[in-house]
Amino acid sequence: MPTRTLRVDLKERGYDIAIGSGTLPQCAEFLAERSSSSHVVLITDSNVDELYADAVGDYFVEAGLEVELLVIEAGEESKNADVLIDLWQTMLAEGADRGSVVAAVGGGVVGDIAGFVAATFTRGVPFLQIPTTLLAQVDSSVGGKVGVNLPEAKNIVGAFWQPLGVLIDVDVLGTLPAGEFAAGMAEVVKYGVIMDEPFFEYLESNVDAINARDSETLQYVVERCCRLKADVVQEDEREETGRRAILNYGHTFAHAFEAATQYGKLLHGEAVAMGMVCASQLAERIGLIDAQATQRQIELLEALSLPTRPLEFDSEEIYRLMWHDKKVADGKLRFVLPTRLGEVKLTSAVKSGDVIAILEGDA
Amino acid sequence: MPTRTLRVDLKERGYDIAIGSGTLPQCAEFLAERSSSSHVVLITDSNVDELYADAVGDYFVEAGLEVELLVIEAGEESKNADVLIDLWQTMLAEGADRGSVVAAVGGGVVGDIAGFVAATFTRGVPFLQIPTTLLAQVDSSVGGKVGVNLPEAKNIVGAFWQPLGVLIDVDVLGTLPAGEFAAGMAEVVKYGVIMDEPFFEYLESNVDAINARDSETLQYVVERCCRLKADVVQEDEREETGRRAILNYGHTFAHAFEAATQYGKLLHGEAVAMGMVCASQLAERIGLIDAQATQRQIELLEALSLPTRPLEFDSEEIYRLMWHDKKVADGKLRFVLPTRLGEVKLTSAVKSGDVIAILEGDA
Repeated sequence: MPTRTLRVDLKERGYDIAIGSGTLPQCAEFLAERSSSSHVVLITDSNVDELYADAVGDYFVEAGLEVELLVIEAGEESKNADVLIDLWQTMLAEGADRGSVVAAVGGGVVGDIAGFVAATFTRGVPFLQIPTTLLAQVDSSVGGKVGVNLPEAKNIVGAFWQPLGVLIDVDVLGTLPAGEFAAGMAEVVKYGVIMDEPFFEYLESNVDAINARDSETLQYVVERCCRLKADVVQEDEREETGRRAILNYGHTFAHAFEAATQYGKLLHGEAVAMGMVCASQLAERIGLIDAQATQRQIELLEALSLPTRPLEFDSEEIYRLMWHDKKVADGKLRFVLPTRLGEVKLTSAVKSGDVIAILEGDA
Repeated sequence: MPTRTLRVDLKERGYDIAIGSGTLPQCAEFLAERSSSSHVVLITDSNVDELYADAVGDYFVEAGLEVELLVIEAGEESKNADVLIDLWQTMLAEGADRGSVVAAVGGGVVGDIAGFVAATFTRGVPFLQIPTTLLAQVDSSVGGKVGVNLPEAKNIVGAFWQPLGVLIDVDVLGTLPAGEFAAGMAEVVKYGVIMDEPFFEYLESNVDAINARDSETLQYVVERCCRLKADVVQEDEREETGRRAILNYGHTFAHAFEAATQYGKLLHGEAVAMGMVCASQLAERIGLIDAQATQRQIELLEALSLPTRPLEFDSEEIYRLMWHDKKVADGKLRFVLPTRLGEVKLTSAVKSGDVIAILEGDA
């Protein structure tokens, strides 16, 4: 399939997402079409460095650009304020200025911290996203959310900083560890549940091609997810109208699962898979959907090698941790619950007893 | 004089600046007209804490708001990344969330770091400016520039984050130390030189009332400066067109003077006063203006107790430090030079020999 380009329409902050197979060598051209900068600060992590970032850096150098490659330690632990300060100082030492461009080559952690560096260095420089994990390709690289964690809370500081463009090469998914790939698929399934029943059905029908990481299938999957996310972001860029909150389907539970495991033991996408099942069961319990809608999600998630039951958790602790979520508004837990496959609604009208019953496996 | 309200027209980011005498007690009403938040994080410094911030906190509490008062050490040294992280963590510990408002009560340092906290906490919360120094009232509280210093460079990380509103009480200037007051007046004189000859003449004619800190005179001076700055910011919010650069008149020299003294020995306004004289002498030397225009600036600045000659500096070092300024574009030093009182132009067409001659006192 040829490379496809989607537009995220945010007026003067609008940008393109190019999605294709073997697009990495086009990175310098992609940048040149959007910026006249000759200085690129390329931020990556220790996993992606030799795999892809070195090559990306070489493409930029071949195109005549000056490139600084900054490598952070792979893993969520790097998404902190100390690494942020270190990146600021290194950029300054390497001669970056307000004419530089920051490019992120990596997964969500790299994109989030590099994006926050871009949002803040000299009060903001252009930012290019080259996501190399499925999660980053279908979710975190689109929409402009950037930031770091504090020890007490994830993503608690950051900015909305839209990229100059997003360049996606689905071929890089070939080297993604199985667990990471599956975790990315949890967010893919989420898009189907929250806004696109035909896409959910497409996923059900193409599990084998997906698991085999068939290039054309992945390109379609990534493109569809980016389009759906872009549509939501266009309507609610700064998470103000509530529209963008639908993307948090499963996440109120998921964040509590992640917090209960101190982050790291559980991949974000694994927590989201379990969280979506809980949210769907909660919707079932309060009469929003029938059992069939939950069952199809469970079967699809399991076929994609994702966990669907949070058996090991202390329900009371999880419930308590859910209250720490940033989305707690006006002292009420807010849930994104399906009303059918392809549609969700936001509601705070949920009794604590129902939530705890779900967590105790009493669906 | 009644309180006057100016509008900074930045579409959805537009805001009011209210300027009056004895306006502090109106802070809760001013906020309530602009936000329904019931939680205020009030950031101040150890100088302003007991003088004004406590009272402001009390006014908010009396109006039924929940208030957390965070006090940083007074001085430019506090405008750093460690204090930033500390403020983020304290806010989180005090229960701030995306529904909170950050209010800055203090000078430029407090406004800059509190504004950056506001720009980044939960990816941005509303921000109220209550500036208590002349410099902050006429300059830093208007325009949305927020940020912190790194050890290697001032204001190198930050954001453009427009306030919800700016509430100015000129009565608080009564307690400002003489040096701080004079330093603020340097920026006031700057506005006259760069864009408003009648205002420059007004200052010449009202030096005694200004030095006596006459309330009505100060209210007029602050209002005029805010209007002039707002006009520039409206045309070039993110410093992209070059228009906003005129505000840097005298600053290319000033930043080098400050760097040469390791910051702190010289107040920013003092450095700006000397820098403006150098810039004006440079304009004279290359034939843009006559000696009379420089002389009137020197006389006005001296009448306001400001320094006008940088005698103690090593010219070559200052010239080298000027190149570290963020405004170095395309490898050229860029100067804001007067073409007459009330008008300036941006130019890179300046020979190094001319700059060094000025620094050596060879005007």
